Amino acid sequence: MIRRILGIDPGSRITGFGVIELKEKRQPCCLLGGCIRLGAKEMPLRLGQLFTQIQDIVKQFKPTELAIEQVFVQKNALSALKLGQARGVCIAAAMSLNMPVYEYAPKQIKQAITGKGNADKSQIQHMIQILLTLNVKPQADAADALAVALCHSHMLGLDK
Amino acid sequence: MIRRILGIDPGSRITGFGVIELKEKRQPCCLLGGCIRLGAKEMPLRLGQLFTQIQDIVKQFKPTELAIEQVFVQKNALSALKLGQARGVCIAAAMSLNMPVYEYAPKQIKQAITGKGNADKSQIQHMIQILLTLNVKPQADAADALAVALCHSHMLGLDK
Repeated sequence: MIRRILGIDPGSRITGFGVIELKEKRQPCCLLGGCIRLGAKEMPLRLGQLFTQIQDIVKQFKPTELAIEQVFVQKNALSALKLGQARGVCIAAAMSLNMPVYEYAPKQIKQAITGKGNADKSQIQHMIQILLTLNVKPQADAADALAVALCHSHMLGLDK
Repeated sequence: MIRRILGIDPGSRITGFGVIELKEKRQPCCLLGGCIRLGAKEMPLRLGQLFTQIQDIVKQFKPTELAIEQVFVQKNALSALKLGQARGVCIAAAMSLNMPVYEYAPKQIKQAITGKGNADKSQIQHMIQILLTLNVKPQADAADALAVALCHSHMLGLDK
């Protein structure tokens, strides 16, 4: 059975995304990685754009599930609110197309990808490039999105 | 021209909603008011339920626009994140059905409904009952949702 995992690293300005494909007894394969930049439009328009672009990815690549970072702490309440809005939109985009959603804590993701729960962004980028045998180092938000997708596949034991 | 405004007061546990109809030279009329209780399910399931129920209301009542409270300050970052998620889902539900979204600050809404920017919840409920000639006092979250819808109609000069 082939499974495709959509990983998302939501943000109020930049949202990273990535799709990995898992086939039995094969290395996970990266189908897509990138980021959505929401620019300086009014917030409802940004959220509408984010919703549409996530749904477009889902319709095109047909992932079977969504893996998304679980956020606990934010610097301040306003940035938490903005992040929450983007996160809610991404989850709604997946749920409205009947995809199950899995949440992983940042530490869990870093541990799964680098073996260390406090790894920094550049370590994540480095390990994602190696684990998915990418020709170039992925952009930071795309790497975080691919990391949560890979973390989900680790948890399912699908990449063994 | 008939306009219908969907007002939403989003919350991570309870989301108030209300639909008012505006016809030229008539008092605004309440078509619907109520609240969605999300229960104790996992967060993605709650957000998926919220998205579906808001879209169901839109499909049934065909509002022409969404008015939603603009939130600035929250007690703490975690509650801001949760509120943001619910808010993002409501905005995405409207935007994905091509409804324009209007945001109003809490002070602006209270001022429009009660004449005082620091009115309390019971004043809002009282004034909503009077302004929309309701037989019973509306539930608090439904009243807040109808308040932001009425505030939008005031701003547009549609209820004059």
